[in-house]
Amino acid sequence: MPMKLSFASDYEEGAHPSILRRLFETNMEKAPGYGTDVYTESAREKIRIACAAPEADVYFLAGGTQTNAVVISAMLRPYQGVIAAETGHIAVHEAGAVECGGHKVLTLPHHDGKLDPDELDACIRLWFKDPNRDHIVMPGMVYLSQPTEYGTLYSLADLERISAVCRASGLSLYVDGARLAYALACPENDVTLPDLARLCDAFYVGGTKCGALFGEALVFPRHDTVPHFFTIVKQRGALLAKGRVAAIQFDVLFTDGLYEKLGAHALAAAVRIRTALRGRGYHLAVPSPTNQIFPVLSSERERELTEKVGMSFWERADGGAVYRIATSWATTDEDVDALIKIL
Amino acid sequence: MPMKLSFASDYEEGAHPSILRRLFETNMEKAPGYGTDVYTESAREKIRIACAAPEADVYFLAGGTQTNAVVISAMLRPYQGVIAAETGHIAVHEAGAVECGGHKVLTLPHHDGKLDPDELDACIRLWFKDPNRDHIVMPGMVYLSQPTEYGTLYSLADLERISAVCRASGLSLYVDGARLAYALACPENDVTLPDLARLCDAFYVGGTKCGALFGEALVFPRHDTVPHFFTIVKQRGALLAKGRVAAIQFDVLFTDGLYEKLGAHALAAAVRIRTALRGRGYHLAVPSPTNQIFPVLSSERERELTEKVGMSFWERADGGAVYRIATSWATTDEDVDALIKIL
Amino acid sequence: MPMKLSFASDYEEGAHPSILRRLFETNMEKAPGYGTDVYTESAREKIRIACAAPEADVYFLAGGTQTNAVVISAMLRPYQGVIAAETGHIAVHEAGAVECGGHKVLTLPHHDGKLDPDELDACIRLWFKDPNRDHIVMPGMVYLSQPTEYGTLYSLADLERISAVCRASGLSLYVDGARLAYALACPENDVTLPDLARLCDAFYVGGTKCGALFGEALVFPRHDTVPHFFTIVKQRGALLAKGRVAAIQFDVLFTDGLYEKLGAHALAAAVRIRTALRGRGYHLAVPSPTNQIFPVLSSERERELTEKVGMSFWERADGGAVYRIATSWATTDEDVDALIKIL
Amino acid sequence: MPMKLSFASDYEEGAHPSILRRLFETNMEKAPGYGTDVYTESAREKIRIACAAPEADVYFLAGGTQTNAVVISAMLRPYQGVIAAETGHIAVHEAGAVECGGHKVLTLPHHDGKLDPDELDACIRLWFKDPNRDHIVMPGMVYLSQPTEYGTLYSLADLERISAVCRASGLSLYVDGARLAYALACPENDVTLPDLARLCDAFYVGGTKCGALFGEALVFPRHDTVPHFFTIVKQRGALLAKGRVAAIQFDVLFTDGLYEKLGAHALAAAVRIRTALRGRGYHLAVPSPTNQIFPVLSSERERELTEKVGMSFWERADGGAVYRIATSWATTDEDVDALIKIL
Repeated sequence: MPMKLSFASDYEEGAHPSILRRLFETNMEKAPGYGTDVYTESAREKIRIACAAPEADVYFLAGGTQTNAVVISAMLRPYQGVIAAETGHIAVHEAGAVECGGHKVLTLPHHDGKLDPDELDACIRLWFKDPNRDHIVMPGMVYLSQPTEYGTLYSLADLERISAVCRASGLSLYVDGARLAYALACPENDVTLPDLARLCDAFYVGGTKCGALFGEALVFPRHDTVPHFFTIVKQRGALLAKGRVAAIQFDVLFTDGLYEKLGAHALAAAVRIRTALRGRGYHLAVPSPTNQIFPVLSSERERELTEKVGMSFWERADGGAVYRIATSWATTDEDVDALIKIL
Repeated sequence: MPMKLSFASDYEEGAHPSILRRLFETNMEKAPGYGTDVYTESAREKIRIACAAPEADVYFLAGGTQTNAVVISAMLRPYQGVIAAETGHIAVHEAGAVECGGHKVLTLPHHDGKLDPDELDACIRLWFKDPNRDHIVMPGMVYLSQPTEYGTLYSLADLERISAVCRASGLSLYVDGARLAYALACPENDVTLPDLARLCDAFYVGGTKCGALFGEALVFPRHDTVPHFFTIVKQRGALLAKGRVAAIQFDVLFTDGLYEKLGAHALAAAVRIRTALRGRGYHLAVPSPTNQIFPVLSSERERELTEKVGMSFWERADGGAVYRIATSWATTDEDVDALIKIL
Repeated sequence: MPMKLSFASDYEEGAHPSILRRLFETNMEKAPGYGTDVYTESAREKIRIACAAPEADVYFLAGGTQTNAVVISAMLRPYQGVIAAETGHIAVHEAGAVECGGHKVLTLPHHDGKLDPDELDACIRLWFKDPNRDHIVMPGMVYLSQPTEYGTLYSLADLERISAVCRASGLSLYVDGARLAYALACPENDVTLPDLARLCDAFYVGGTKCGALFGEALVFPRHDTVPHFFTIVKQRGALLAKGRVAAIQFDVLFTDGLYEKLGAHALAAAVRIRTALRGRGYHLAVPSPTNQIFPVLSSERERELTEKVGMSFWERADGGAVYRIATSWATTDEDVDALIKIL
Repeated sequence: MPMKLSFASDYEEGAHPSILRRLFETNMEKAPGYGTDVYTESAREKIRIACAAPEADVYFLAGGTQTNAVVISAMLRPYQGVIAAETGHIAVHEAGAVECGGHKVLTLPHHDGKLDPDELDACIRLWFKDPNRDHIVMPGMVYLSQPTEYGTLYSLADLERISAVCRASGLSLYVDGARLAYALACPENDVTLPDLARLCDAFYVGGTKCGALFGEALVFPRHDTVPHFFTIVKQRGALLAKGRVAAIQFDVLFTDGLYEKLGAHALAAAVRIRTALRGRGYHLAVPSPTNQIFPVLSSERERELTEKVGMSFWERADGGAVYRIATSWATTDEDVDALIKIL
């Protein structure tokens, strides 16, 4: 059965072939469990180097919602909540995982998916000034996504500012990098891995959407940020018995710049599609420079296109239907050609 | 570096090669996420057939502690706890995952790792007769492992009895099958997958320790046992974005009887080792018929053997040190020969 | 030390003297614990009669946040959240108690403290229509306060509509009646206790702010709405050993219409103050007809008044400072006179 | 209806009359809420003086299970559990409140209701030595009751030893003093309030069972032991709006030695009953020196006595039925006479 052309998401294929090859090569070697093996140590060290964070603690978890939930509940005290944009993944699409762990998500308005540093600052000040603050959830962490759920990017200046706001008031800063490859490879991006390590208290480098079978590399730039974090991971059901399986994938991704190359591949495809869309007069709902593109479709175009190509329905807005087109490390030139032809 | 001979655990290698091959073959096919793909449906159907449970709901999760924690918190009401043997994995080695989900583990004495059906019955009756029972955690579920953490097996008669006890009092019965392949293939075993489906409310077929890279197949023999279970899985951070990756592994394991063959392979190796141990006068701490063997070592033998072969230290008992030797789907004849030579 | 005139809240005094007298009279009688005594049964029966709900289950808890947290976590399933106005007490001033119990508070805009039935209906429909709804917290309950945190009232028509919306989609309706006496006694109110019993799945009749030392009477109009609720109350630390102490207070409040009388007393005082404020040209920030009054004060008036009378600062808005003046069952005519004199 | 003679518990009556009188006297005074009033400050200061702990933080909560649950979850980190005797109230009769807060109760055998310091020491060492300890709940706190649930007492030497064991390994020590008055007044007791303050990290002075309508005074001998504890109390639904009501009761109990006098009154009655029981040849199941007495009754005696006097059934043991007779601050000489007559 020939498959329909699809740009529905960036996790439709398996893994980059070099990852599978490496899993094959190492398959029958024996390794101890729970992340105590040599592959895990190798992957950790490569990530520490890429982040210029030699003291960093690195953990490999299976997925994004899991990573978010474990980190947030491990870093917050019971009386604290986490600030996020109202469009943040933890606020909307994680089925209440943060609340299930006992904490409130304190939402702020979004601006193309981003938190505004001034609004963030004001929100934190408000709590500290409130005479009833002891009856109100205390902001204990800021969560943001890079790129955001809308494909947009925080600039280095934004992130410096947000980090400074957090540090001034004792909040942690945590960055969800589910699609980080597509930020790092973006020409408009000026935030590097060392910047993240310098400015955040924790962040994760996404694998599932960036070329791995599954897996996210969680980085605490400073050693022992969360004492007994290993046990917390185990307690939350997030400890992989065969830790090597996730680690080998990151070991490959962080060898010879593969992670950056996969990001660049997806972005080149996105640029072609975005250019074609603009050329044909489509309005884009969000000015996203990364691998997610949000065209607004008229009813007629919606009917025609959705028959021929898989896309994700986003929302009704701007006088039409907003759909998401996602490119990835696996997007082929042929598929991009085919898509452009029918736009 | 030549690796030391190791029988330390049954999760030291990657996956059975046919699994990796299948991941390669299907790698660049596009599939929707979260278990809505054709591979997941295929694996589900094969498991339903193997269990003779055509209405069963089947979910693929990443690991055992995760599966236990999600199922137990989803099936219990807030005022209920789960009964387990004091040696049960959830009672000892899951870092308090069940309690983290809000529930008490109610422990009973173990008998070579097993619950005694009469003691179980008495314990449940005790709660119902206690005039203060409304101040005491109510037993809501029975958890057992097949094989147990000590490698022993519940007989079909045991399981029939335990199931009847549970049903008489409205408790759920849940079986942790982390090493189920090594039970199913055991000549002394008389409990089949259809028996589990008939007698339990939920159980899981272990992949991580039985030939997969990772993954457990959770089976609810009756449809919609837990409404909205998909969302509960998501909320607990246990939903795999690329559901295909776990499902393909089970699809292979349940094709042409591979799961049984892998179990039989491990058991043949275990029989050889057990015979050799007995022949050389070793005492075995537990009469385990499956892939885990528990010799008692004198100080001298402990020193000699642990230098030459990886084993898991279990406990000091029976006037010596109990170690665990585990065989698996990946154990080679050469390694068994080498081990027997040095015993 | 003469006390400053204060209208800061409706819980500044102890209890209505007839409650203390009754506690004295019954003090040395022996009674069994945990709500199994004759006083508890008597108070329950009086409340059932007042609510025209002969099958109702009635529990006496110590405070409002506790009651809300226990009811909400007991009635929701893990994947569900509770809808509230963004100004709802559970959304703002309970320190994240609902999230601590594992559930998200889903907020809607408020209209003078109230939910709009149409917006509520739309919000619930939105979830059911969302193709990603299985990744999103499901609305499982509607929470509202009568009177609201802004002193406003839901009309019977509002409540009928909200109840119908809930029942159409299987949501529970729960009403926080912390200040219910001040709603029931209000001339503008048309919602009776029997209406609440008919339209809600649970509600509580507030004692702490309505003349008791402490205590809230939680009513489930239908028997056994939450099985094992007694144990849930115990588990949440909300079970009073000497249940009689809370129950006797409600027994008195529901004898000879005392609860209504206390409400009427507070409202008469509120009417006098509101009339005086309007007469002197004050703007009221909220059209609240109950015992809470929200004048907007210029800087000058703020300075003068806060020196002479205790009020609660509410917020900066409407070009001035909004303060709350609260009357209660304990407000004296002399204090009202004194307040009016200095307004 | 004349009441049957009852020694079923120590919380059958209301409060000591001087407490009710003081509630009456202060009833119409206005006080701010949530423990910011002068009565709360006065009671705190009296307790600090009684404990020789001038820096202590003191909070007034409504009941024992609540206090235990709030303190334990506030002081433990997620990966930690609390050690208790298997007969400890938190392990048995609090409906899983500790687990509901996310933590495991790690039980040790009891010795007439007490933990053995050597067994405690060994249990803690075992965890630290276990190579799998990162997969096992870490002991983070020791919970004990003074007097115990069996009416027995820890000696000062016991408590010094337990405290030293805790401090050597970084565990907190928490003492549940639900019946502390009956320990403090016992001639066999050598543990004072200043000893508790010196040796524990937290403990509570029981009110509910020692003469108050309700209420427990929680003491953290060192200031700010748990940052933001006020908010944690609120979040757990344990914050009393009218904090004065609990505080005034403790203010009275800690004036002119009333707390000690009430304890002494109960113990004098207990001595008379214990002497009578021994004189008539009853076997006592536990050598409890405080207000709880545990006679073993033959079937015949059980039938006769339970008709005439209320007692709590404890368990079948020692070839008979063990019942609990409890005296209290409210026990009258007439009732003791009547009881002795029918023994």
